[in-house]
Amino acid sequence: MRNLLLEISYNGMNYHGWQVQANAVTIQEKLQDAIEVVFGNREDVKGCSRTDSGVHANVFCCNFKTDKNIPAEKVPDALNANLPCDISVKSCKEMPLGFHARYDCKGKEYVYKIWNSSTRNPFLDKLCYFYKYHLDEKLLSEEAKDFIGKHDFSAFCAAGSSVEDKIREIYSFDVRREGDMVLFIVSGNGFLYNMVRIMVGTLLDISSRKIERGSIPEIIQSKNRSEAGFTVISDGLYLNDVYY
Amino acid sequence: MRNLLLEISYNGMNYHGWQVQANAVTIQEKLQDAIEVVFGNREDVKGCSRTDSGVHANVFCCNFKTDKNIPAEKVPDALNANLPCDISVKSCKEMPLGFHARYDCKGKEYVYKIWNSSTRNPFLDKLCYFYKYHLDEKLLSEEAKDFIGKHDFSAFCAAGSSVEDKIREIYSFDVRREGDMVLFIVSGNGFLYNMVRIMVGTLLDISSRKIERGSIPEIIQSKNRSEAGFTVISDGLYLNDVYY
Repeated sequence: MRNLLLEISYNGMNYHGWQVQANAVTIQEKLQDAIEVVFGNREDVKGCSRTDSGVHANVFCCNFKTDKNIPAEKVPDALNANLPCDISVKSCKEMPLGFHARYDCKGKEYVYKIWNSSTRNPFLDKLCYFYKYHLDEKLLSEEAKDFIGKHDFSAFCAAGSSVEDKIREIYSFDVRREGDMVLFIVSGNGFLYNMVRIMVGTLLDISSRKIERGSIPEIIQSKNRSEAGFTVISDGLYLNDVYY
Repeated sequence: MRNLLLEISYNGMNYHGWQVQANAVTIQEKLQDAIEVVFGNREDVKGCSRTDSGVHANVFCCNFKTDKNIPAEKVPDALNANLPCDISVKSCKEMPLGFHARYDCKGKEYVYKIWNSSTRNPFLDKLCYFYKYHLDEKLLSEEAKDFIGKHDFSAFCAAGSSVEDKIREIYSFDVRREGDMVLFIVSGNGFLYNMVRIMVGTLLDISSRKIERGSIPEIIQSKNRSEAGFTVISDGLYLNDVYY
């Protein structure tokens, strides 16, 4: 038996997220379809995380077991030939049998992309959030530093989440501009449901002065979702890196 | 009466090119729909060129006449509110009554985008041409210089074109790389039907040694379409600038 780790990338625009569900097209389903064609068996693929509907991945990791001996370096081309153009397998690596893409994950990096211009970009529809009021990326990057550290992030978790332990550690949070694109780049050991989207929405509310500068520590302390900002749309969210 | 010049940008992926046609969705039609809503009359919009099905525009210019007095600076937002997300009006300017976006055009720049990597990019499906064999952009940029000048470009015109005068002047032709993306940037006073796509296909055939290095002058001289290379797909073609 072999345990194969795939690094994939996908445009989530046309999918209901990673995880297989009834009556909706998902990335996991498309990947399992391709694996079935190439390996001859429908294998259960374990993903590093459950991405939401519409969320993208520059890097997403998953693993599956097989007893077929197709060389790992031939797997990406073989799977890509059986996948739609919005999902791409970038690499395949042999792992120890005990490896699990989700349980062994030590952390992740997300990037949230905002097109910050007076006119929208016709090539980025559903690939970023269009926000026309000018963002001061230096100010926001300073504010974002208050997220760094180990905190109870209950205030930044969508209501209704069943997770009990809401303590997570944020390693870094930078905001930077590339022309009209503003990138919010955050890494941490784990993220609660909608956590990145609420953190970015809170920074936007600070930008528009709905929320006062310097109040992120208080909002964290409050553990109250209604103290934090709005949840930005999924279109701009990309899983950007996965650490093992 | 006023004559308004619009600078627009569009993702051509979902359109059958610029020009209105029966039973197919076009950019001109969508723009005329929006103008009808905003200005109250369906005006005839003159485009700077006819782009093909699937071709994109970073910059495309067009003009129309109206007697309504909406200030020019308010026109982009008003039209954008009535356009799909893959078409964007960037600016609007008052022009002399005699101005015509097509007849007054002094030249254009196109860029052709090739994703040149061993794995495809899931975010660029239909937005570039995916070519997996390594391209030497310096070599191709040197070869491309042979297109510059005033020539009869019959060899680089799709068979069946009804245009009689096939003399065009190419001002510049550069090939450069930005990471895995290779850009073919060409400007000239005018372009024949499929001319940019055949020029790029010829450079790719030089890259793959189907066509010998240094033979572009001979191919031009031959005036024979079958001497030139293949026609690359429309997905990678962008109108990039329009000169008046």
